[in-house]
This record gives sequence, structure tokens and C-alpha cells, in this order.
Amino acid sequence: MGDMLVSIIPDMKRRTVDSFVEKAKALDNKLQEKLVKPLSLVTVGREDGNAVVTSREDISRMPLKLLRKEDSLCMDFGDHHVGYVTLKLNSAGSPQDAPAYLRLKFAEIPGEILDDSSTYHGWISKGWIQEEFLHIDVLPCELKLPRRYAFRYLEVLAVDTSAKFQVVVEDASLTAVSAVSLDEAEPLKNLPEDLQRIDRASLKTLQDCMQHVFEDGPKRDRRLWIGDLRLQAKANYATFRNMDLVKRCMYLFAGLTRDDGKIGACLFTEPVMQVDDTFLFDYSLFFISILYDYYQETKDIDIVKELWPAAYRQIELALLDMEDGVPKTENPMMAFIDWKDGLDRQAAAHAVWIYCLRQAQSLGALAGDNQAEDHIKTLLSDALKKAVDHFWDEEQGFFLSGESRQISWSSQAWMVLADVFDKDKSRELMLRLLAEKPEMGVSTPYAYHHVIEALLHVGEKEKALDLMRTYWGGMIQLGADTFWEAFDPEDPNASPYGSSQVNSFCHAWSCTPAWLLREYF
Amino acid sequence: MGDMLVSIIPDMKRRTVDSFVEKAKALDNKLQEKLVKPLSLVTVGREDGNAVVTSREDISRMPLKLLRKEDSLCMDFGDHHVGYVTLKLNSAGSPQDAPAYLRLKFAEIPGEILDDSSTYHGWISKGWIQEEFLHIDVLPCELKLPRRYAFRYLEVLAVDTSAKFQVVVEDASLTAVSAVSLDEAEPLKNLPEDLQRIDRASLKTLQDCMQHVFEDGPKRDRRLWIGDLRLQAKANYATFRNMDLVKRCMYLFAGLTRDDGKIGACLFTEPVMQVDDTFLFDYSLFFISILYDYYQETKDIDIVKELWPAAYRQIELALLDMEDGVPKTENPMMAFIDWKDGLDRQAAAHAVWIYCLRQAQSLGALAGDNQAEDHIKTLLSDALKKAVDHFWDEEQGFFLSGESRQISWSSQAWMVLADVFDKDKSRELMLRLLAEKPEMGVSTPYAYHHVIEALLHVGEKEKALDLMRTYWGGMIQLGADTFWEAFDPEDPNASPYGSSQVNSFCHAWSCTPAWLLREYF
Repeated sequence: MGDMLVSIIPDMKRRTVDSFVEKAKALDNKLQEKLVKPLSLVTVGREDGNAVVTSREDISRMPLKLLRKEDSLCMDFGDHHVGYVTLKLNSAGSPQDAPAYLRLKFAEIPGEILDDSSTYHGWISKGWIQEEFLHIDVLPCELKLPRRYAFRYLEVLAVDTSAKFQVVVEDASLTAVSAVSLDEAEPLKNLPEDLQRIDRASLKTLQDCMQHVFEDGPKRDRRLWIGDLRLQAKANYATFRNMDLVKRCMYLFAGLTRDDGKIGACLFTEPVMQVDDTFLFDYSLFFISILYDYYQETKDIDIVKELWPAAYRQIELALLDMEDGVPKTENPMMAFIDWKDGLDRQAAAHAVWIYCLRQAQSLGALAGDNQAEDHIKTLLSDALKKAVDHFWDEEQGFFLSGESRQISWSSQAWMVLADVFDKDKSRELMLRLLAEKPEMGVSTPYAYHHVIEALLHVGEKEKALDLMRTYWGGMIQLGADTFWEAFDPEDPNASPYGSSQVNSFCHAWSCTPAWLLREYF
Repeated sequence: MGDMLVSIIPDMKRRTVDSFVEKAKALDNKLQEKLVKPLSLVTVGREDGNAVVTSREDISRMPLKLLRKEDSLCMDFGDHHVGYVTLKLNSAGSPQDAPAYLRLKFAEIPGEILDDSSTYHGWISKGWIQEEFLHIDVLPCELKLPRRYAFRYLEVLAVDTSAKFQVVVEDASLTAVSAVSLDEAEPLKNLPEDLQRIDRASLKTLQDCMQHVFEDGPKRDRRLWIGDLRLQAKANYATFRNMDLVKRCMYLFAGLTRDDGKIGACLFTEPVMQVDDTFLFDYSLFFISILYDYYQETKDIDIVKELWPAAYRQIELALLDMEDGVPKTENPMMAFIDWKDGLDRQAAAHAVWIYCLRQAQSLGALAGDNQAEDHIKTLLSDALKKAVDHFWDEEQGFFLSGESRQISWSSQAWMVLADVFDKDKSRELMLRLLAEKPEMGVSTPYAYHHVIEALLHVGEKEKALDLMRTYWGGMIQLGADTFWEAFDPEDPNASPYGSSQVNSFCHAWSCTPAWLLREYF
């Protein structure tokens, strides 16, 4: 998820369930720390339009570089990391007669080293660009940077020194942090190398997003989003199996809601724990899905009973956003589904409704809430009927969405995941989708994931794998160490924000190959 | 003094006299601290080309300002100060979903608020511009800025926030520091108001430059320069009378020299105490002058005896820079005298030589060093003869300098201060100077001071006062709270650095009216 959604509700009233928040706090385990040193000095340039490392030098040469005005050096820490940096700086030449003025650039991918932040005019905050301007009055010094960065490359530029002295970077180190260590997840070995590389980058993506909460992206925007949490939790079950972190996030969402119990799309843990004022039809319902998945993994019936009322409340509240048994259409961003421009979200939102009702029915039974179970049964039966009556076009063989009767990839994928039809008919639908390739495609790893998951759901493993290889493999071919928030194979520089400078290149919702490869292959 | 002189001597050998350095360290008294709060919010604009405060608002309104992207506010702390700033920041609106990206600008004069640092292409370090770019990840926060600033105005600009939140500056405070308090110096009361204002600004200038050493300028360049020290010490004797600080600075210069004992033009106290690799004929000799003046004030014969060898060594070493009894001319910047473009410094340097020989003769006698005294006597007699034979042009009635036989204000002023002629003839010379106004004038408060001092030396009080009123009063008319490093009444934006953005507007060598007004009026 990300900053696409700017919802502002002045004076929104919030409700806190203290017991849930206390449990969440108790589950805030200490992060694992790992000392990482830069491996080499690199230069970054463009080859065929792509930013790549064009040359390398041994890191032992770093202290020999005397940085005069406008000189720079770029360290490569060997892999994507999240953490805290310390630089040992010194001066060379005559005594330091002016402050050293430095610019530090932290880059997840080589392209960010070539970016010029002064040209950034995108619509989300420039503050996300990982760049610092620092005055160092007295050299030598050990510069412990207080902020956390997500990066592999670190460029140090001497904006200015003076005619008398030069700046020397004697040493650099990074304390990388995560809730988990890569050692805790077994990498896949019996797969072709390209898939192993996809798996490796997925694991690294997930690891670096696992901090005090499952973060959206450790560069940007660092919050806990529930749509991403659902996918991260599933990937975590297949890999690191850090159950505490999932549990903590569930308690946070259940404990910090709107005053009517509506679960938010995201929440903050600093400076105070509070739910954001952004609410999405699909995202609130996914609380049910996360609880359901957690139970499948843990068989923890107690937490189901404890959180069931919060989960069920999402169904009651979702009904307020529905009319005649289908999601309302007046707010085109009522549900998220995907960032795709022009996407009509009604049909997919309806499918998410069904998908979550099915899981809610199980949970209601587990919680022993017969009344709710009956209610959900009725809702589900009605929703399935509406899915066909309202959205299905037998003639075209696709689900249509909204007043424009739009045929989109996301609508089909979600209707398949919701098991609106039986497996055979769903399989036919997915094959038709791949054959006819409707124009309204998918634009994020999040939505690609659901298309692939739908293909796997109907048994089309090869086709699912092809798509994974094209899409996630495409990022690998561009040098990705971790998977990106946004990727358009046709335009690697695409950004939903008007500039890729603020894109996140290690983003939670793109970590799912680690799960899919383990579950289906 | 300042950054005009870029001397670089690779691998220069230094000598440390530990006992002097230890004494200097023992004299490093704790600074006085004063809590200062901003008095109002201001807007700065241009009127008749000059940057001025165009409107004011009560500071109590500051917490009501919600800074969105590109909004700013500007605090006025009421007077020039040197110190450490703490800001209490908060957010307003929806939860803070991005780092707040702020720019802070510290300005000694209103013009600096209007400056655009991205246009700075001067030849000294851009690092001197008092501007910080800061990311604040979590609001609210108390931001204690680690660096020291010299300023009256502080602008906070929200470079970016996000659509969801605004930045609020709830409070700001400054811990102003100085070795002295303004209360320690009696302001002049029985003078016309314009002179009282000149005196007030002189005192503030001196106070703000008195830190752990007599600094050059607390904005830039903060070092201890010996030419400035000489004037600051004199002004200090007439006002704050902080003898320890003068003594400390003398021990520093005597204790930290080139390996042959040459006293540097400036020195550093951080990260280690060391003399810079800049040496000037006049500046090294001024060590004699500073010791002489200190004795006149304190009658401390012990320190004269202790530091006399270091002082006398400057005479021996100065001889290496002379040929046929006059300063060599091969290096046009061998002596400082003034920054004036095209100034030939030979005659003035010769006058400084005489000026310091006279004082050295007294010190040698006090130290009981008869041999040196005799040597100096011979040198002085020769130097006085050379002053007339080599430099004086009876026909034109001026001292001429260098091969171009240049007539400059500085040559005449210094020859008068050196008492090359008797008082009457010197007076005639000064009156001729004012009447004929040779083109090669003076360009800094440092050189203006010596012209005024020469006028006072020959009894021309009114003419000295007129010049002080034009020059220092000119800065006051432009709103100066403290006096500037550089000021050209014809061009208030002039800078020796290619841009006034790095000019220092509180500069040691311009504090002398406080001394001259007290000594002569």
C-alpha cells in the first residue's frame, strides 16, 4: 500500500481497546541487529537507459579518497538493508578552516544515486527522498546518523569544503535491523536459478519490511497497512514464521479503531499509537482474512474468540457501504484493489466481500457465534447470487464492473479467488482473461499477486509461473535486490507519484513469491 | 580578518610550548549563558533596494501558524546573538504520514532571509551559510540543534509536509553564549544619540565575538586571528575588561607556532589546538603590539618577561621578509593591511614594522633584555630613515608604496600611527589625505579604523567623528545590530567573496568605535 490515498477526516473520533493495545505492546520484541560494512566503492552510470553499477573499487581505497568541493564517493553495502549508519570522517590538507558541507544519498537501487532531488515535483512529500545535507564543524568526527535508512548504496558528496582542506571518509558501518534474520527462513533449492533468485529477493523484501510492525516499505511509507499485512503474514507463515509480529499487528488493528469499531486501512505506532483516518471497504474486511489465516497456521482458538467481535463488526460496517447487496459506486476509491488508473473497483470489491464472508463464516463457527454465523450465511448466499446477477456477462464471459461495465483483470481474479464459480468455470475464465487480455490490466505487485494467486487457485501453475517470471523476474533483471512498490515492465521508471524518486524499492506487498513458490511448487 | 587569504603549506612543521598551552587551557573560563526568546514574527521584504522587516506580529501567534508545504515563518529574537537553539515542533491535521522536511535559515541581518543559497557561487565555502535542511520523522519533538549559530532572525520553512498534516512551531528558545555580559560594560550616555547607537552596536559586536577565544566572526570564520585580536583587546580594555581572555589568546599564539617560532596569522582550538599555515608580516609583528597593550593595561611584568622571547622572535623573523631595510615586494599579500583590491602594501607594512619596533623597544627594556633593546634601537633608527628616504615624496606630500609608487590611504594612516613625522607634519599629511582623497582608499572596517585612529592621533577629533558617523553610522542606518566584516557605503551588498551570503555581519575588527569613543571623547 502507500500514499496514493489521501483521506483527511477532521476531528475523527477514535476508540482504543486498552487490553488489545497492551497485548500488542507486550509483543513488541527487540529487533535483531547485524553489523554490515560496505564491500566496495562503485560508480553508477546509465547503460541502455538503465542505471547500473559501471565500475567497482575495493573498499580499502576509501580512506585514500580526498574529497574536494563537488567530489563524491559511493559505497555499496552488498545488499539491501534497513538500519542506522555511522561514518568516521576526517580532514586532509591544511587545518579545516570552514564547516565541511556534505550531502548523503541513500539508495535502494542504483538509479536513486543518479536522481536529482531538486527536480522532484511529485505530489507526495519530498521528505521521503533519503538525502541529508549536513554541516560538520569539526573534523575528525564520528557521525552517528539518528535516522533509519533503507538502502544498499550510500553516496557521500562534498558539497563544499574550502581551498584548504579535503574530507576523508575513513570508515562506514551499518547496524541493520529486522524482526527476523535471513537464517530463519530456508531458501528454496530445488528450483531453476531464476526462481531461486526471485525467492531470495522476496525473502529479503519481507525481512526488511519486518520491523516493530510489518511495514509497508522501510524507505516509504513505513506504516502498518492492513492490505500489505495480509500478504506479508501469509509469506511469513511460509518462511520466517514470526507469529508474534502478526499477532501484535492484529491486536493493534483491533485495539485502535474508529469510534464505531471500523478498522483502519493503516495505523501509526509513533509518536502515539493511533489509527489513521483512511478507511477502505476491502482493507477493513481483510481483518477477517488475517485472523482466519492466523488460525489456519496456529489453531489458536483463543485469539479467534477474542478478536471475533472486532472482525464481525467489519461485516456490519461494510453493509453501510453497500446498496441492493452490492458495493456502492459513488466513491470510486471506496475500495483499494489496485492503483490502476481508471480501474472500476465495484466488482472486485464485491468479490472481496464474498471472499471475506466465507472466512468469516468459519470464524463465526469457531467462535461459537451462531447468530452471526446465520447472518453471514444469508449475506454470503445473497452476495454470490448478486455476483452473477449483477456482475456476470455470460455473453462476453467476463465479470463487468460499475456503470461503465468495465472488464478488468482485477475483477476476474478476485471473483475467481472468491469462488463465485466452480473450479472449472473459474479456470475457463482465467484462461479467457489471458487469451483476450482486456485492456484494464493490473499495475502493482499487489494486483499481479492476485492474478497469479487466481491462476494457481484454478490449477494453472505454468501460466502463473510465466507471469511471475515476467513480472518479478523483470525486476531481478533490472538488478533488484528487493521487490518494488511499483513496476511496469513496459516502463521501469514509472511512478504513481509523478517521480520514481519517492518510490519504495523494498515493498511489503511484493514479497509474495516466497509464499507462492513454497505453497504451489 | 577572514578567508581572503588561502595559504596552504603542505607538511608545515609546528612547535608547541606546552607550558603556554597549559596556561591557555587553564584560562578557558565557562561562557555566560542567557536564555533568549523570540519577540515577534516578522516578514522581510525590500524597500528602496534594502532588505528590511516590513511587518510584525506578536510571537504569541506562532503556535497558530499551520505550515503546509512551502509555508514559512520568521522569528525575530530582538537583537544579534550567538548560541544554541531549541525548537518545540508539533503537527496539526491528520496523523503525520511522512517526514516533515524543514529548512532553517539563521540570519544576522534581514537580507540573509531573502538570500537564495542555491545561487551562491562565491569562492569560499558554501558551508558558511547558516542554513539547515532537516527531516523530522516523528512529531511532536523537541529539536535541540547541535550547532552554534550567530543570528537575530530565524526562518522555518516547511519544504514539504504531506497533504495530511501541517507543521507547527510551538516554541523556540536560544541559549546565547559569550565570555562577557553586556551588563559588564558601561554604555556611553553623554553623547549624541547616533554615537550612542554606534557604541551599543560596537559593544554587541565585541560581546558576540568573545567566546572561548576572541573570534573573528561568530558566523564566519570563528577563528582567532591576531590582527583582529589586537583591536578586540583594545576595545575590551575600554569596556568589558576581560583580561583572562586576552591572556589566554596570547598564550595560544606564543604556544602554537611554526617550528622556527613564527607566530601565525590565526589558529584553531578544535579538534586540536594548532596554528594555521597562514603567516603575514604585519600579523606576526602584532604579537608585540598585543603584549605591549596588555602591559599598559595590567602592568603585569611577569607575562612580559615570559612572552618577550616569543615577541622578539617575530622581529628576527620579520627581517627575513625584508631587503635593504624595507619589506620585500615579491609577494603582494605578504602583509595584510586591508582587503582593498590593488592596494600596494609595502609602505604600510614598513610602518607597521616601525610601529611594532617602538613597542618592542619598551618591552625589551621591561624584560631587561638590553642586547635586544640595542638591536631594536638600531633597527628602528634605520627603519625611520628608510620610511622617509624610501617611501616619502616631499613634492607630492605623500608616502608612496611599491614599484608603482602608489598613494594609498592605508600607507599614510600607518605612517602617521608609526610617528614617522612629528605630530604637526603628520596632521598636515592627514588633512592633505582628506582633501585630496587619493583613489586607493580603504575597504574594510579594519582599515577605516586605522584611518580614524590616525586622525585622532593627530588631534583631528571632528574629522575622525565625521568618518565614524559616515561609515559605522551607515551600517546603523541600514539596520545593523552589530558591525560588519565588510561595508562599502557606495554598495551595501558588496562582498569580498563574490556573494554577501557568506559575509559576516558581526565581525571583530569592526568593534573599535567602543574603544575610540571612550578614549577620545
